[in-house]
Amino acid sequence: MRASQLHLPTLREAPRDAEVVSHALLVRAGFIRRVAAGIYSFLPLGVRVMEKIKTIIRQELGRAGAEEVLLPLVIPAELWQESNRWTEYGPELLRLNDRKGGEFCLGPTHEEAIVDLIRRDVRSYKQLPINLYQIQTKFRDEMRPRAGLMRGREFVMKDAYSFDADDESARTSYQAMFDAYGRIFSRMGLDFRPVEADTGNIGGKLSHEFQVLADSGEDAIVSCDHCDYAANVEMAGLPTPKAFEWAADAPASEVVDTPGQKTIEDVCSFLGADPSGAVKAVCYNADGEPLVAFVRGDREVNEVKVKRAAEAAILEIADGEWFAKATGLPPGYLGAMDAGKVNLLVDHEVAAMASAIIGANAVDKHRVGVIPARDLENVRWLDLRLAEAGDPCPRCGETDGGSLRTFRGIEVGHVFFLGTKYSESMQASFLDVNGKDKPFVMGCYGIGVSRILSAAVEQNNDERGINWPVAIAPAEVIIVGISRDEVGVELAQSLHDEFERRGVEVVLDDRKMRPGVKFKDAELIGFPLQITVGRKAAEGIVEVKVRSIGERQDMPVEGLVDRAVAAIVSARDGSALQL
Amino acid sequence: MRASQLHLPTLREAPRDAEVVSHALLVRAGFIRRVAAGIYSFLPLGVRVMEKIKTIIRQELGRAGAEEVLLPLVIPAELWQESNRWTEYGPELLRLNDRKGGEFCLGPTHEEAIVDLIRRDVRSYKQLPINLYQIQTKFRDEMRPRAGLMRGREFVMKDAYSFDADDESARTSYQAMFDAYGRIFSRMGLDFRPVEADTGNIGGKLSHEFQVLADSGEDAIVSCDHCDYAANVEMAGLPTPKAFEWAADAPASEVVDTPGQKTIEDVCSFLGADPSGAVKAVCYNADGEPLVAFVRGDREVNEVKVKRAAEAAILEIADGEWFAKATGLPPGYLGAMDAGKVNLLVDHEVAAMASAIIGANAVDKHRVGVIPARDLENVRWLDLRLAEAGDPCPRCGETDGGSLRTFRGIEVGHVFFLGTKYSESMQASFLDVNGKDKPFVMGCYGIGVSRILSAAVEQNNDERGINWPVAIAPAEVIIVGISRDEVGVELAQSLHDEFERRGVEVVLDDRKMRPGVKFKDAELIGFPLQITVGRKAAEGIVEVKVRSIGERQDMPVEGLVDRAVAAIVSARDGSALQL
Repeated sequence: MRASQLHLPTLREAPRDAEVVSHALLVRAGFIRRVAAGIYSFLPLGVRVMEKIKTIIRQELGRAGAEEVLLPLVIPAELWQESNRWTEYGPELLRLNDRKGGEFCLGPTHEEAIVDLIRRDVRSYKQLPINLYQIQTKFRDEMRPRAGLMRGREFVMKDAYSFDADDESARTSYQAMFDAYGRIFSRMGLDFRPVEADTGNIGGKLSHEFQVLADSGEDAIVSCDHCDYAANVEMAGLPTPKAFEWAADAPASEVVDTPGQKTIEDVCSFLGADPSGAVKAVCYNADGEPLVAFVRGDREVNEVKVKRAAEAAILEIADGEWFAKATGLPPGYLGAMDAGKVNLLVDHEVAAMASAIIGANAVDKHRVGVIPARDLENVRWLDLRLAEAGDPCPRCGETDGGSLRTFRGIEVGHVFFLGTKYSESMQASFLDVNGKDKPFVMGCYGIGVSRILSAAVEQNNDERGINWPVAIAPAEVIIVGISRDEVGVELAQSLHDEFERRGVEVVLDDRKMRPGVKFKDAELIGFPLQITVGRKAAEGIVEVKVRSIGERQDMPVEGLVDRAVAAIVSARDGSALQL
Repeated sequence: MRASQLHLPTLREAPRDAEVVSHALLVRAGFIRRVAAGIYSFLPLGVRVMEKIKTIIRQELGRAGAEEVLLPLVIPAELWQESNRWTEYGPELLRLNDRKGGEFCLGPTHEEAIVDLIRRDVRSYKQLPINLYQIQTKFRDEMRPRAGLMRGREFVMKDAYSFDADDESARTSYQAMFDAYGRIFSRMGLDFRPVEADTGNIGGKLSHEFQVLADSGEDAIVSCDHCDYAANVEMAGLPTPKAFEWAADAPASEVVDTPGQKTIEDVCSFLGADPSGAVKAVCYNADGEPLVAFVRGDREVNEVKVKRAAEAAILEIADGEWFAKATGLPPGYLGAMDAGKVNLLVDHEVAAMASAIIGANAVDKHRVGVIPARDLENVRWLDLRLAEAGDPCPRCGETDGGSLRTFRGIEVGHVFFLGTKYSESMQASFLDVNGKDKPFVMGCYGIGVSRILSAAVEQNNDERGINWPVAIAPAEVIIVGISRDEVGVELAQSLHDEFERRGVEVVLDDRKMRPGVKFKDAELIGFPLQITVGRKAAEGIVEVKVRSIGERQDMPVEGLVDRAVAAIVSARDGSALQL
């Protein structure tokens, strides 16, 4: 390929709305362009990367026995009404009407559409298992699209769905996809971790996220420093600490004035205490009912745990006025003593506190000297807090002393063991070996194809630009043509032709531009191997640079293509390029 | 591939709404399933065919210098407002609102989106020409979706857009795409014709459709039996015949009673005349104004000619009541004499009539003995009728006597020379070699990717099923395993493995089903080459059948794979399979 004939518009400036480096770089380097909030066009380089990602996915899913289908983007409401998600899914589901007034949605995920397909065509256990996937544009009307492709509204996704006759077989299908995902992300050269995860509004019993490790990731994940436990922090259960054993003559708590001090920080600083000596209250609206979660003042509430404990379909932070009206309690001064009949959930760790500051359920008042294990009544003691670095590992913490480390991650894949959630609500069944009607046992499996571009760039960049893994680079080699004399021009061309002949993807930068511009673009776009044909061309010397290592060095042309081709080919499996 | 592990649900019955054979066969053979009117899912076989079609398109467009991009499906209204198509496009444009009330549409075509992309990144003639394409799902909210994939609402399309600095260069781009389209459809093994076409609501100056010839096609096309003229019948201009020269003493016309006789057929049969001796009137609503087109009674009106003559944006058949009210004339008895101030367009051929029956503009009355060239006043004489078989060729009819043949076709591709229609309305310009601002000269080029499945099946089927061209078959060879003894099972497997090893796409039908079912499925699905391993397996004899030729014959296994591979490989260019 000749750069002069490619559409490679690079920009000096990052877009103003770029919050993360991948967003800035993908725009600057000419991979994507914004069309509307969360909606992007992919330029030729972006499509090239995306096609490589798709090829890896197709190959590995094929190996795992999955077959490709294509379901519609515009889905009739009736199917979503059958599963109840037409009402349950919320405003991320973009609903629309056709010219005749028929109700449809843009598919944000395709459980309903695939179940409908399978229930019409599959009648017998003999046709199972089936695993179908598609790679397709999806739309989710996010409230706050952000960070370029990281959280877009229109995006490209691979979604797969497995159908099995029983749980055991479904677990085998789940495991096969889990393994395929590991191969897929490894082959892309990504540093990732599979972690245990919540099932969210997809539903089901068991799920894992595949998280690409990156500081800018939206998800917090924890892993054990001793065993192989790893989970989205939302999922990390914590052991119950020993409750405080109070002396029989311990003094009772007292109410003190804390005028205008509503937040934990304000109250503690006013009373000269550390937040770890206070109890924090967070007020929720759980399916319309008020609910308060209490954790130690220096901890955070894990809302997945609260939601599960409350068995709530929708859990939201309560509006202060609504809460006050519903309970008669003043939100800034809430405590877990004498709170009346409000649903109070208290984290186990609070019971271990020897003395605590808590709200007194009266404006401008707090209680001090509370012994929670003694003083709190009519509360549910639960594991409610968010795990932190140093917390004991839920799996081996108590036996082997493993403790948690924390990371941030970008979710690029998610596998769900769905069970019969959709097949039961949509009456999708087959005849088993005994001729009995049974619902399919399902799994579903997503990969954020376009999001992988962001994740890969977050993990592979420096101040000069992107540093693509060979396996998903827009091209593997760039020949930067600097020399203008005949020997140099011919050498650049012959290197290009030789790489091309040997099946390496190569771009020859033959544009009539200053060398500085060409170097900057090569670095910005992030071709894994740069070969510069410059003033030493006549001596048979070129400059070679592995983008990820970063030293440009003179090398003789002789034997270079052999070495480079071997290095590129061996890095196509996701490993680092080494010349 | 093993059929036992593929999802190949075949059906005995055609769907009730199937009007054409391709619709019935694509559903029965397990390529597609209906989800809603004009909205289909593609099963694994359907995706396989579509991916082959995409590969051929990508290869040929790459050769023509086009680069792949991906534009969004959900497009902000502002872009369509700039080009005025937000109001002009009509109800086929599916409009929708996002959660914040923003206006969007589902892209039925992407001129606006691509112009926006280019105007932001391309400033100089040095960056031209550019030709970008995408392969993507589109949505057009057709009033009457029909015939399966032939006229769907959601469909897969390849759309390309070229940007040039001037007309001459743009014509070169147009020609390159025209040539690429020829290679694309040839490689798919389709019998097609490029024909001159109307530019419709895409706009522009010049266009060609690529029509796959099929009796079930929606489009009528004409071609010359002498020169290379071929056009959509809408575009076929006809020469002006010589007007009738009347004698000075020719009698005047007379009004006769024709009680209740409104149609041409009724009037002629009532008066004992042939329709070729009468004049037919068709009433239109042209942008809100009444208009009447007259052609000889045995001819049809060409509405594209009427629309162009009337310079109307929207031309519709008039509602009878509305027309009567607007003109004071009775629709069933309309004539081109004494019609008052109504806009009257009369086909040239009418002037050649020696004596004509026409409406008398009064209920239950017609005029006979009209000499149109003498008697019609205040009318515009124009070329208005639809060309028919036997009509003179517009290109060589007058000089060389060529005459037209008619065909029906399925439009699978369409190329438009757009000029500056979009770049001017959207202010998309570049600096030319003199530093002057100029609008881009554009072309746009579509291929109906999913419609090609229908077109290919319409052209390649028999009473038993589909007969895919090798180049786009879901797989090239099927091994039908009938023999259950060890030798037979092993032979089937080894044939399968050998084809696979040699890069031929092969399915082994290893399902536990009756031979009759396997044969029927093989015929229905339409694999180009069938090899049956049956009772003569032990003797090294199998049955071989080229699906398109249709004779099943015994052949020795020895040397078979070599011959078959050679035959398959040579048919991959779109030519017929011959063993």
